[in-house]
Amino acid sequence: MNRREMMKTSSAALLTGIASIDTSASAAETRSPENVERWSVFELVLDGPKDGNPFLDTWLKATFRIGAREMVIDGFYDGEGVFKVRFMPDALGEWTYITDSNMASLKGKKGKFKTITPGAGNHGPVRVRDVYHFGYSDGTPYFPFGTTCYAWVHQSEELQEETLATLKTSPFNKLRMCIFPKWYQYNHRDPSRFPFPRQNQTNDYSRFNPDYFQHIEKRILDLQALGVEADLILFHPYDHWGFQEMPAEVDDRYLRYVIARFAAYRNVWWSLANEYDLMRKKNTADWDRFAEIVTQTDPYGHLRSIHYSKAPYDYSRVWCTHAGVQDYAFDKAASWRETYRKPLIFDEMMYEGNINSRWGNLSGAEMTRRFWLCIVAGAYGGHGETYVSETDIENDKAVLWWSHGGKLKGTSPARIAFLKKILDEAETVGDGQIGLTELQMPYYPSAKRNRDEAFLFYLDFHQPLYYTFPLPETGKYRADVIDPWAMTLTPIAGEFSGKTRLTLSATPYMAVRFMRVKIK
Amino acid sequence: MNRREMMKTSSAALLTGIASIDTSASAAETRSPENVERWSVFELVLDGPKDGNPFLDTWLKATFRIGAREMVIDGFYDGEGVFKVRFMPDALGEWTYITDSNMASLKGKKGKFKTITPGAGNHGPVRVRDVYHFGYSDGTPYFPFGTTCYAWVHQSEELQEETLATLKTSPFNKLRMCIFPKWYQYNHRDPSRFPFPRQNQTNDYSRFNPDYFQHIEKRILDLQALGVEADLILFHPYDHWGFQEMPAEVDDRYLRYVIARFAAYRNVWWSLANEYDLMRKKNTADWDRFAEIVTQTDPYGHLRSIHYSKAPYDYSRVWCTHAGVQDYAFDKAASWRETYRKPLIFDEMMYEGNINSRWGNLSGAEMTRRFWLCIVAGAYGGHGETYVSETDIENDKAVLWWSHGGKLKGTSPARIAFLKKILDEAETVGDGQIGLTELQMPYYPSAKRNRDEAFLFYLDFHQPLYYTFPLPETGKYRADVIDPWAMTLTPIAGEFSGKTRLTLSATPYMAVRFMRVKIK
Repeated sequence: MNRREMMKTSSAALLTGIASIDTSASAAETRSPENVERWSVFELVLDGPKDGNPFLDTWLKATFRIGAREMVIDGFYDGEGVFKVRFMPDALGEWTYITDSNMASLKGKKGKFKTITPGAGNHGPVRVRDVYHFGYSDGTPYFPFGTTCYAWVHQSEELQEETLATLKTSPFNKLRMCIFPKWYQYNHRDPSRFPFPRQNQTNDYSRFNPDYFQHIEKRILDLQALGVEADLILFHPYDHWGFQEMPAEVDDRYLRYVIARFAAYRNVWWSLANEYDLMRKKNTADWDRFAEIVTQTDPYGHLRSIHYSKAPYDYSRVWCTHAGVQDYAFDKAASWRETYRKPLIFDEMMYEGNINSRWGNLSGAEMTRRFWLCIVAGAYGGHGETYVSETDIENDKAVLWWSHGGKLKGTSPARIAFLKKILDEAETVGDGQIGLTELQMPYYPSAKRNRDEAFLFYLDFHQPLYYTFPLPETGKYRADVIDPWAMTLTPIAGEFSGKTRLTLSATPYMAVRFMRVKIK
Repeated sequence: MNRREMMKTSSAALLTGIASIDTSASAAETRSPENVERWSVFELVLDGPKDGNPFLDTWLKATFRIGAREMVIDGFYDGEGVFKVRFMPDALGEWTYITDSNMASLKGKKGKFKTITPGAGNHGPVRVRDVYHFGYSDGTPYFPFGTTCYAWVHQSEELQEETLATLKTSPFNKLRMCIFPKWYQYNHRDPSRFPFPRQNQTNDYSRFNPDYFQHIEKRILDLQALGVEADLILFHPYDHWGFQEMPAEVDDRYLRYVIARFAAYRNVWWSLANEYDLMRKKNTADWDRFAEIVTQTDPYGHLRSIHYSKAPYDYSRVWCTHAGVQDYAFDKAASWRETYRKPLIFDEMMYEGNINSRWGNLSGAEMTRRFWLCIVAGAYGGHGETYVSETDIENDKAVLWWSHGGKLKGTSPARIAFLKKILDEAETVGDGQIGLTELQMPYYPSAKRNRDEAFLFYLDFHQPLYYTFPLPETGKYRADVIDPWAMTLTPIAGEFSGKTRLTLSATPYMAVRFMRVKIK
């Protein structure tokens, strides 16, 4: 990338909340301090040596200080002699910084900037809250409703834009996506960019292709602008180019490089792998080392997990912030949560679609059902979609949301949006600060409560003529019968307290919501 | 019971294949030998002491011989001075017998009879076959399609007759039923008979009420006449009268008495308990002892199992002939079968109905689905039904098939009958002697084959546009698309071999059957 392109990127970044300071023109002092939103990016851009191999030969870091606090942030080489340090300030006030490096031209650069109140839509990074749940750093509740477009950043620019347009009107606020390109069924093309210089089917692991990572950064920021968390998959086994079997030191360098580049973006989550247990060349020690690198190198403590195929990971391990399971035993959610004492996301529970693979042809009704099962178990679900037409397959033109992005065709997203709305409404009844806690019901493992403010029951394939709901004696509640498929919400006349017998429709897949009547 | 009544019972019994010989009039020799169908009952009736307590004071047994074989069969006291020995001959030819007893009047009674070819409908007891399956003793395949009417023999005579009339036209060929009366929701009445003399809420455990057991025998034979196996539940925790906490020696005497009375009926299965782990007064040693008594006392080796609530039993234990699980993890069926190396019946997978309990309000569609899941996993399912109306509940008149019997109201039985017909048809394609074995498919754990003669795939909530079915290269197959709910079977034109791609309806809950084209 040349300087002109870099400036273009910086401008684009500024639009999405990055304050970029190019100190390359000055000597040891930066230009006047700038204002940076809390949880946005302060970016220091420095000119340095471009000879030799700066990826290996040059190191750069900066120490950022506010009050008594100090954070040491790794910089990275962005090609063409440009070095950067990206920093996400988490506290309001004036920060100062000073760089250090093994190269004189990058050493001792000083400056300061001010962190200001974030603008609308900037709630900061998502954190674990109330053991089993999530919330943004500013206290706003965050209920993950994820989807997957594993290889969307490696598709045509048009398709990427279409994916963003789709996400804009979808209920999804988290996207699982791979950093490396993907080789798998319906994914048998080279990407337009490679993470390492590559010639004659050989990767030059001694260097990175900054262009590759700049592009991903742009897409992370595009997601950020849409309020979508980027659940970045650091390794995966769907490979054709060697990235699943790189030398250990390259793995580690890649991780540090990715963290130095991406960690300052507030909407980043780290997923060590998709289906880690299918990566035959990696062993437990490798995964332990990766977990340690991510945990110790990311200065901001972004959310961290790992995803398996057959061999469930022990999510009670300290480095994991949450469990991201590939499983369909929704009735086990409660006991798994208790075991892990962490939030539980069913990150892959098959995909709505019609393809010739068991994992890719769920009905929309079943995908909808799975989201409800997750939510009432106090867990969270992950969506994905794999619809194809025979014509598209014949013409090698199949675009599957699951991997490529594009448009959503299924029947579940509208229902997932409906469920998300119900959760959001329930939350507003509470104090909006505490997230949800759950109540295990005697029969239905399906009640979710917000400090006795709201209860949500999902009846799944049960069709009782009536059911006695165990409400608290201490409050009065309004009741609504919910049809998750028809997306209707029908109030039941009256106010209810204690054991409440409601006559129901005696049809399956219904839900009932109780909301506490506010005391005026 | 007086003699006249007893004769009446004997006559009724004769109609259903019991040859009863009353030797009480003669001295040491019986009357002329009679013909008894193989696997029917030869019954020896003897007069003995009625003073004191013959249940405790008198023992009787008979040794039956054919060729070099010898079987020693326990007799039992049937009240009013009448002693009986019931015997189910399993070999054709002439049998002799001689009694032994601690009472002179019952000792040394001799006789003989001839076992003849069984009539239509008498296939002998069901046995385990091909590790995971069942067959009648004469080689006829037996696919258990069970239902439950736990307390049907303790209802009014009219209701019992209605239950039998319902079973006659139902698909069900196995019935789980309790020997002891039942006390539970919708079951809060004393039975008309008690197993022990009972006064002032106290059971006289030193005696049995023969009348009670005679009635159950009549019902076992009624089921036999309908081709229904009686899966007899020997203990259960839904008790109000003390039968779940009898002294150990009473438990054991009860078991021996029941076995002496019932074991000669070819359609008997032993289920040690329903929800054994809810019987708080029993411990593992008790269950081990019961298993040993049943295994060692039943001369015919009827099928034996046990049923749990929460604590899965280790069905790999030698005494169990098959696993009878209460679970809904149908995807675990294949691995459980492998662990146990025995047939696997999901004996309780909730009930179709509409009651206010999670286990009793499955939709008919879900019950149908569960049967399909069992079958294509190489396991078997169990039906039950719990429909009520609010009026019936208010008038205390609710009749629930699950416990009382009566009429079936649900939508699943017709679909279960449809599935059973498909299995029966598949079997007739094979040699009819080997039962079914299964093939685990790479994606669908859902293919069932009969030595490559027939394959059955169930797509559950999957809705592929097409699917490539891995048929053997060695045969040619006809294909039918099955709609398990609409109960339709639509042939697909052509003959198929090897990897077979079929375009499907892309709707969920469909099935596909392949039947080998016969070589003329």
